[in-house]
Amino acid sequence: MIVLLDQRRLPTEEVELVCTDVPALIDAIRTLAVRGAPLLGVAGAYGLALAAVRGFDVDEAAEMLAQARPTAVNLAYGVRRAQTAYRSALGAGESFDEAAAAALSEARALHREDAEASAGMAAHGLALLQELLPGGGFRVLTHCNTGALVSGGQGTALAVAGAAHKIGELRRLWVDETRPLLQGTRLTAYEAARAGMPYTLLTDNAAGSLFSAGEVDAVLIGADRIAADGSVANKVGSYPLAVLARYHHVPFIVVAPTTTVDLATAEGGAIEVEQRPALEVTEFPGDVSGRPVAPLGAQAYNPAFDITPPELVTAIVTENGVLSPVTETGLAELCARSRSGNGMMSI
Amino acid sequence: MIVLLDQRRLPTEEVELVCTDVPALIDAIRTLAVRGAPLLGVAGAYGLALAAVRGFDVDEAAEMLAQARPTAVNLAYGVRRAQTAYRSALGAGESFDEAAAAALSEARALHREDAEASAGMAAHGLALLQELLPGGGFRVLTHCNTGALVSGGQGTALAVAGAAHKIGELRRLWVDETRPLLQGTRLTAYEAARAGMPYTLLTDNAAGSLFSAGEVDAVLIGADRIAADGSVANKVGSYPLAVLARYHHVPFIVVAPTTTVDLATAEGGAIEVEQRPALEVTEFPGDVSGRPVAPLGAQAYNPAFDITPPELVTAIVTENGVLSPVTETGLAELCARSRSGNGMMSI
Repeated sequence: MIVLLDQRRLPTEEVELVCTDVPALIDAIRTLAVRGAPLLGVAGAYGLALAAVRGFDVDEAAEMLAQARPTAVNLAYGVRRAQTAYRSALGAGESFDEAAAAALSEARALHREDAEASAGMAAHGLALLQELLPGGGFRVLTHCNTGALVSGGQGTALAVAGAAHKIGELRRLWVDETRPLLQGTRLTAYEAARAGMPYTLLTDNAAGSLFSAGEVDAVLIGADRIAADGSVANKVGSYPLAVLARYHHVPFIVVAPTTTVDLATAEGGAIEVEQRPALEVTEFPGDVSGRPVAPLGAQAYNPAFDITPPELVTAIVTENGVLSPVTETGLAELCARSRSGNGMMSI
Repeated sequence: MIVLLDQRRLPTEEVELVCTDVPALIDAIRTLAVRGAPLLGVAGAYGLALAAVRGFDVDEAAEMLAQARPTAVNLAYGVRRAQTAYRSALGAGESFDEAAAAALSEARALHREDAEASAGMAAHGLALLQELLPGGGFRVLTHCNTGALVSGGQGTALAVAGAAHKIGELRRLWVDETRPLLQGTRLTAYEAARAGMPYTLLTDNAAGSLFSAGEVDAVLIGADRIAADGSVANKVGSYPLAVLARYHHVPFIVVAPTTTVDLATAEGGAIEVEQRPALEVTEFPGDVSGRPVAPLGAQAYNPAFDITPPELVTAIVTENGVLSPVTETGLAELCARSRSGNGMMSI
């Protein structure tokens, strides 16, 4: 079985969700009880291992898991890694039990690698902030949730903010609430409060006022998929921040492990953006039994992600270094480096 | 007494709120039971008349009412008009009862003028859309609520969309939900549904995706105060839309009666922006007894408005015509025209 922290219940309750089979895990993924690109990869790998250990059809489980949500590439990546380990073991003449153990071992390796990648991103991201903002005392705006909740380690963008906080250089963490599901209010504020960071919540609408007032030194966000051209799919609302950041000459920094880069997707327009139910917009958020706030029958446009083109991204921070400016060639080189230079990202 | 439609209860309930004295009306204004710049002017004038009719201290009531909310200039404008009528009557030797009747008469005149101004704005705004977008079939994005609920007539920006709808040229009304208080979801969607407009709700975050996809032909918003230089104070989230519109070469059109122009405020930086309680962000919205969604003790930055500089405003549409480009001289001329050219705006 897989035990998850149910992110839907945070911050008011810390509840564990137990998934004893793949359909339960898929439900947890679709309802965002477990979410965040790196964690989805880890969860997908463990899910595949669970199917193998319990004797279900592993290839069927792999398809179902990989397609549970379409945008974050890490999910399919984690599933495929565990599936490949399973198949390799079988191909080498091992038993089903031994192959299941190999899948589980691969999931644990991915989990560990993700923690290591977090530490790498935090170090590289902090060095970038210090280079871009030599005065220190960073006022960082972030969107959605990218902390320890989404990672085997300290996360992506929020890990960078955390690294700045540890050396006393985080002057303010501005936390976008992140409608419709309020991951900023519920999750990032929860993590920031636990870490003792100086944070302030705001509606997504109020970010413009902060830029206008010169209160934002840098934007730090994560990514759900980065296309080969450097286009970044991330939580809806990221693209407007990128446009605002450009208008105000503020660095817009994307922090993601190289597993989030999908060289098979040529450009931003080719990324499938998940459309989510209108109810997330027409009812009060975060509640299992929502209360309607819109007129009956109201339609809603509810994309979960948006795409920021590479020309609006100041830098992409990965565990293997920083890419700036963001170019197709540079991104391919960064990924190649990661896949040969050390063992972390070998497929 | 003053009977108001309680906008906090919409769209699920249509409830009348009865204010029998000025403090009750001030409470209704502060809690946004009654809101929207033009309607605040009308409510302020009626409030002053109510104080006069009931024999309260009229000057004290005027101060309290005018300061109930700081940003929308119409509120103070409406209060002052009724107060001036009251004082003039007294100065001319009329009785207190006659002076109170004069204040009430002035409030009714303002109410009527507001309806007339709505019709003028709708006509001028529609003509502007037809000029800017000769292909017709407008896809209009709007923010907050600017319809009949805020006006003696059909409102400001939403009146323009309504005029386009009446001639079959409104292809889509994109309705920003407008956090934190969801005036888009609760009020604009309610008005759009009643008028049979083809509307779609979205989170404020999703507007960027619409611009990216080329799905927005024009942005239409109202204003709470327009400074002498053409800077526009409007609901928080308007400025990010202006930046997005500029980035995507989409017209950003402000629709407001000339009573919203405050020539005494030189520029945008001089407009006082109301800061509202953190609870609007940290608890579920629209509920009288909110349920916390943020960690205990979370701070929130919650400005009610933001300021869009004139260089990002394609046009200002008033009842007396359209100003484009937006210049200080042009704005002063438009206001002078309105105050001498016809009786509507005489002070």
